[in-house]
Amino acid sequence: MSAPAGIARTPEPPYYAVIFTSKRAADDDRAYGAVAQSMVELGSRYDGFLGIESARGADGIGLTVSYWRDEAAILAWKRDTEHEKAQRGGREAWYDAYQVRVARVERAYGFARGSSG
Amino acid sequence: MSAPAGIARTPEPPYYAVIFTSKRAADDDRAYGAVAQSMVELGSRYDGFLGIESARGADGIGLTVSYWRDEAAILAWKRDTEHEKAQRGGREAWYDAYQVRVARVERAYGFARGSSG
Repeated sequence: MSAPAGIARTPEPPYYAVIFTSKRAADDDRAYGAVAQSMVELGSRYDGFLGIESARGADGIGLTVSYWRDEAAILAWKRDTEHEKAQRGGREAWYDAYQVRVARVERAYGFARGSSG
Repeated sequence: MSAPAGIARTPEPPYYAVIFTSKRAADDDRAYGAVAQSMVELGSRYDGFLGIESARGADGIGLTVSYWRDEAAILAWKRDTEHEKAQRGGREAWYDAYQVRVARVERAYGFARGSSG
């Protein structure tokens, strides 16, 4: 798989993050999972893609954060034809609401068990 | 509850986001839920807190994004005594790994069913 689940291994800041917060509609369209997965795979092949992290809880609230080298890479992916089609599906069927926030990552630090950091 | 679940109602950018991505340890300490909830409540009372969004999937990967007026507000909360104690608990028991990214939100847009936006 081109974009493994987990914590993204991003380079040193600065880089960009797209924070996508969504609330799934109650009507559970089975096409959703396949489209969501294919968007991860398609997006991760775009130039400037750095990684992706995603979680959805039992309450229907989901967070997906994708990381990008710069704003130009984000805009190119936003305007991808297949992605535009998926965005329409999101508004017409899959989401009750969503919010997209584009942010510049300025600093980062982490912890991993068994490592010295 | 001081910080309801869902999509945060944040003001117009710019503001700051703290993206906290974590992988829960297999050993499921029952204190975790209570501490996590009390950190949400304590943090949301800090000056400059704008909102919080959180999701954890069945794979143990969780994303919590908190929003803040400025970096000073983020640092004040990071240094809170109770929060520091919880951060230690996170490293010693609750998380296998985590990553914290501090980012400046530059633009935002959204969709809500039944609204014109």
